[in-house]
Amino acid sequence: MALLHEDRLFPPDEGTRSIARRLYGQIRRLPIVSPHGHTQASWFSRNEPFADPVALFVQPDHYIFRMLYSQGISLDQLEIGKAQIVAPRKVWRLFADNYYLFRGTPTRLWLDYAFQESFGLTKRLSSSTADEYYDAIKAKLARPEFLPRSLYKQFNIEVLSTTDSPLDSLDEHKAVRDSGWKGRIIPTFRPDPVVDPSFPGFRKGIETLGVLTGEDTTSWPGYLQALETRRQFFKSLGATATDHGHPTAQTADLSERDADALFAAVLSEDATEAHRELFRAQMLTEMARMSIEDGLVMQIHPGSVRNHNAKLFERYGPDMGADIPRSTDYVNGLRSLLNRFGNESKLTIILFTLDETTYSRELAPLAGHYPCLRLGPPWWFHDSPEGMQRFREQATETAGFYNTVGFNDDTRALLSIPARHDVARRMDAGFLAKLVAEHRLDEDEAEELAEELTVGLVRKAYKL
Amino acid sequence: MALLHEDRLFPPDEGTRSIARRLYGQIRRLPIVSPHGHTQASWFSRNEPFADPVALFVQPDHYIFRMLYSQGISLDQLEIGKAQIVAPRKVWRLFADNYYLFRGTPTRLWLDYAFQESFGLTKRLSSSTADEYYDAIKAKLARPEFLPRSLYKQFNIEVLSTTDSPLDSLDEHKAVRDSGWKGRIIPTFRPDPVVDPSFPGFRKGIETLGVLTGEDTTSWPGYLQALETRRQFFKSLGATATDHGHPTAQTADLSERDADALFAAVLSEDATEAHRELFRAQMLTEMARMSIEDGLVMQIHPGSVRNHNAKLFERYGPDMGADIPRSTDYVNGLRSLLNRFGNESKLTIILFTLDETTYSRELAPLAGHYPCLRLGPPWWFHDSPEGMQRFREQATETAGFYNTVGFNDDTRALLSIPARHDVARRMDAGFLAKLVAEHRLDEDEAEELAEELTVGLVRKAYKL
Amino acid sequence: MALLHEDRLFPPDEGTRSIARRLYGQIRRLPIVSPHGHTQASWFSRNEPFADPVALFVQPDHYIFRMLYSQGISLDQLEIGKAQIVAPRKVWRLFADNYYLFRGTPTRLWLDYAFQESFGLTKRLSSSTADEYYDAIKAKLARPEFLPRSLYKQFNIEVLSTTDSPLDSLDEHKAVRDSGWKGRIIPTFRPDPVVDPSFPGFRKGIETLGVLTGEDTTSWPGYLQALETRRQFFKSLGATATDHGHPTAQTADLSERDADALFAAVLSEDATEAHRELFRAQMLTEMARMSIEDGLVMQIHPGSVRNHNAKLFERYGPDMGADIPRSTDYVNGLRSLLNRFGNESKLTIILFTLDETTYSRELAPLAGHYPCLRLGPPWWFHDSPEGMQRFREQATETAGFYNTVGFNDDTRALLSIPARHDVARRMDAGFLAKLVAEHRLDEDEAEELAEELTVGLVRKAYKL
Repeated sequence: MALLHEDRLFPPDEGTRSIARRLYGQIRRLPIVSPHGHTQASWFSRNEPFADPVALFVQPDHYIFRMLYSQGISLDQLEIGKAQIVAPRKVWRLFADNYYLFRGTPTRLWLDYAFQESFGLTKRLSSSTADEYYDAIKAKLARPEFLPRSLYKQFNIEVLSTTDSPLDSLDEHKAVRDSGWKGRIIPTFRPDPVVDPSFPGFRKGIETLGVLTGEDTTSWPGYLQALETRRQFFKSLGATATDHGHPTAQTADLSERDADALFAAVLSEDATEAHRELFRAQMLTEMARMSIEDGLVMQIHPGSVRNHNAKLFERYGPDMGADIPRSTDYVNGLRSLLNRFGNESKLTIILFTLDETTYSRELAPLAGHYPCLRLGPPWWFHDSPEGMQRFREQATETAGFYNTVGFNDDTRALLSIPARHDVARRMDAGFLAKLVAEHRLDEDEAEELAEELTVGLVRKAYKL
Repeated sequence: MALLHEDRLFPPDEGTRSIARRLYGQIRRLPIVSPHGHTQASWFSRNEPFADPVALFVQPDHYIFRMLYSQGISLDQLEIGKAQIVAPRKVWRLFADNYYLFRGTPTRLWLDYAFQESFGLTKRLSSSTADEYYDAIKAKLARPEFLPRSLYKQFNIEVLSTTDSPLDSLDEHKAVRDSGWKGRIIPTFRPDPVVDPSFPGFRKGIETLGVLTGEDTTSWPGYLQALETRRQFFKSLGATATDHGHPTAQTADLSERDADALFAAVLSEDATEAHRELFRAQMLTEMARMSIEDGLVMQIHPGSVRNHNAKLFERYGPDMGADIPRSTDYVNGLRSLLNRFGNESKLTIILFTLDETTYSRELAPLAGHYPCLRLGPPWWFHDSPEGMQRFREQATETAGFYNTVGFNDDTRALLSIPARHDVARRMDAGFLAKLVAEHRLDEDEAEELAEELTVGLVRKAYKL
Repeated sequence: MALLHEDRLFPPDEGTRSIARRLYGQIRRLPIVSPHGHTQASWFSRNEPFADPVALFVQPDHYIFRMLYSQGISLDQLEIGKAQIVAPRKVWRLFADNYYLFRGTPTRLWLDYAFQESFGLTKRLSSSTADEYYDAIKAKLARPEFLPRSLYKQFNIEVLSTTDSPLDSLDEHKAVRDSGWKGRIIPTFRPDPVVDPSFPGFRKGIETLGVLTGEDTTSWPGYLQALETRRQFFKSLGATATDHGHPTAQTADLSERDADALFAAVLSEDATEAHRELFRAQMLTEMARMSIEDGLVMQIHPGSVRNHNAKLFERYGPDMGADIPRSTDYVNGLRSLLNRFGNESKLTIILFTLDETTYSRELAPLAGHYPCLRLGPPWWFHDSPEGMQRFREQATETAGFYNTVGFNDDTRALLSIPARHDVARRMDAGFLAKLVAEHRLDEDEAEELAEELTVGLVRKAYKL
């Protein structure tokens, strides 16, 4: 009895499946390169045990609680947002009672992987096994091999990127580095708090940025200099990339004078939404310019309507599973930036989307032409077997494999890292196997590609 | 020789197919729960025979005559829109001559099912079998087992919903109920004629609404009260749901005062299209409020550009196969309604779409979060094998199965009901079989889900 | 050892594959009907050998150099845009070194086909086989059987359409015709240079049009008459179709007076982008009117943002691989034209798209209703195995097969013609085989359809 089948996610046709098995066999043990995610540096600087199964699995994972919420279970019942969980076993039972809701979702695949591979559990989670699970996980979490640094090693991680505000001291990253531990935990420069005027506390952030850098961040040149300084600081702690989570893909290329005036406008009381959008647009182009200068790879993650559920946001704050994708226009949006810097081969911009219609219509044609562009893997709701399949089917024929950058786990849940990479490796093996079975590719080429998709392209694109 | 193969619509891979067969075997004989459609209560109150094959199959089915029309056959040749068909055999022959046009379409699957299962026909319809078909069908229609109530029973229907105007007397529903017959035919409250100011005869309808309810429907409070009264009347005859066919998914949440003024505006001579759109938007939110109060489930069917062919509309009126989908924005559109009522677990809103791009981008993320939302099955042009496949592939990973509501046949053609449910059951069995074959789900789970998708979820969502 | 496998592109499941093999066997040797493309009539009038492998394969093919460019290889290195290639062997080696970039793309399939079928090459192109390839191809190009007319014959081409400006003298077409050679090379009337005011040299073109026809093309009636005259001239040299490459699908139906004023506006210095867009829109409707009169079939190819890369355009001009698709609205866009002429069965309009989301949402519903509409095959970036698969899956259930028009190779590369038709035939055979394997179609019907999709529908739709 097992939660995981050795052939899971491979195409059912026996001929194709046997090719997939061979390809997967070559990549399954390769190290994990994780260039984008939301784990905490403090886990590795402090190396303390996780408290209990709820703190480990349920509380940090908005994939889990959004589904439960959609079926009428309140966030209070799940103790979401509480600093201290009062009744973890009760929450765990509620989760177990409803585990069937995840049938057909990637969450189910990720969790079963962690349950079996990390905890040796092989009976399905349900009301009747809830306590058995709780006790088994709880017991193991106390052991040394379940401390974050041990997990990092067991998972065969080569490098793990976090995502950090320019205002972050990166003290935890320094502490990791100073500890002498061999793991490679690196920050990513995510400037949304100080480049997106809609970000709560934007003006306060600009002030803090001035304090941190000694620049006059109320002036446009001082502000830009301060950002450059912080980028250098991130680089000094290992950062190789930036990340930009704007609501749209809009870019702009204003004159120095117009940009200066716009900056003054967004700092003033009477900034409009149009000012804010134009400022975000201009800042993407500024960031591209800085990337050409300092070599940081640029990731653009547009198209999420954040905090769609106003009442939930008022009560619980952001990241409560209520961000919803919207349609995104890359062709017109990116034009200003690309007209300025699109032909720079020293620049790498990795594009992500929540709007799958752009794969074949916009993103693959753009990345199949502009030297600076690469396509990030399927993101968020689309980081799933069917989502990965659609990405490969819709992007590969125009962009090829070599304009893509391997996998991102993008996770907040440490134990899901190997699970997510395993899903990606299996899906890539299956996709390549189909190309081989249909004689669109030879098997030796598929072998080379399988390794590129797993470790080669990501190392190169992210300069890792 | 047969029109139907026992394994039709199952995946071709033998391993997967055998799982699909087992799953389908469990659900094929389950009762038909039909919560949404366009059959006539009068068929069951009067229980009269259908006149001839053309009246049964061709005349009511815009899927059929739109295809014939697209290939140059006029509606006059088909006697569409005539009260009495003059030369039914001639029309039937024309249809048979062109039956090959339906290759690869669901219409072909539905018709072949009816031909074989209801009439025992097993040779393909064509010019050479046209008369044989005509005579065989015509002869059977006269028999008692082809009366509507017999068909209801043979088809193993548990409940059948019609779609009705608030101005409808529902006399035929009353007659069914009073007849002592055991069939369950229930109305659905579809208020478009009195909540959509673009509806032909809108203002006259508002007047009639006042007469029917004794309310002063020229005042906003009286109008709302009249709608509530009619909803109660529909409930008294078994209704469990409302249905809303707006051109967009726009909602609004105006103040009492603004809503009152808007209502006056749309009743006036100088209402603009903007007034009308805002009024429809406001009325969706009003309907949600009423649903919380009276428990009727709300169905939203947006995104059809009605009567795209102006000349055809002028000559033949609506529902002539010339309604065309357009892109639909649910994320911004539904925001006002959801900000007001999105967290109400007493409310159920079932969303449909004609814009498949919204499955993975908008609808699954919305339904996978908001407790009040559920996803309706593929609708209209997408109620087809490939359409169903795309729906499951694109919605399941984010919304799960349990935020969906089973199948709607949505038909005007009585004989297509079992055919359409059979297609849905086969496609669901095939989809689940693939998940099992790929070890993404265990077979016992697939069995449970197959039953949920067939009868469980629909009964629950529609309160049947 | 071979580059091509006999079963390439067929579905891997053995049962389905064997049906695909049978269907393909029936159509593989049928003649090539090529109603739309960008080959040169001068190749056939002059019948001169191609210079070298680079001039044959690399230089004319923006699919090839856009991919190389996206990976940092400059157009200068590839000698793109040069009248005379200075170092063809060096360019060929660079191409061969990077041939692996095309893995998973249709370019790879097309090239391998030409390499093996036309040149007998069976080892994969790479750095190590670059010179072997170069020498083998170079040697064969000098032989008589590699002259354009011989290739036309070997490829079993029945008819080949070029695409031509109304200002073109068509002298090369006349020369082909006068030569006594039996090949059928026909022009297509592509009026963009004189109906799109954004086209470089638009006003100059209008003048030339006047000179060519003796009409006063500064007046609206004279301009229309001149276009009608040129259409007749194209017809006299065999043209059966027009082609329209507008940025959007917008159409208009202005009064005579408004159209006249608009024409004056677009000829003036102060025409706005709104004037230009409205003029293009009006001209589609005018062209439809002329098509009803003269019988030319109308092709509409909207939705490409031309010359997205401003710097590349400044330096190298158009068609450098930097055209990017954008989302396109057919439902509202085509409305004016369809309201005027949509019910004319004498009119044939073939619609193409670069926005795949419109297949199931807009194009199939439109073509499945309007008698004048047909769907063109997958275009440009989507003329690929996965693209063809998506087209059939998303269009067939609503439009059927008979509202489609077979395949277009749309190529600038003579040797890719049989390769592209072969891909289309294999993909159609595979798609039909799946319908047969799933018992959605009988095999005799699939056989009939395979022939229709290969030669029947294209001859009929394009009047060839």
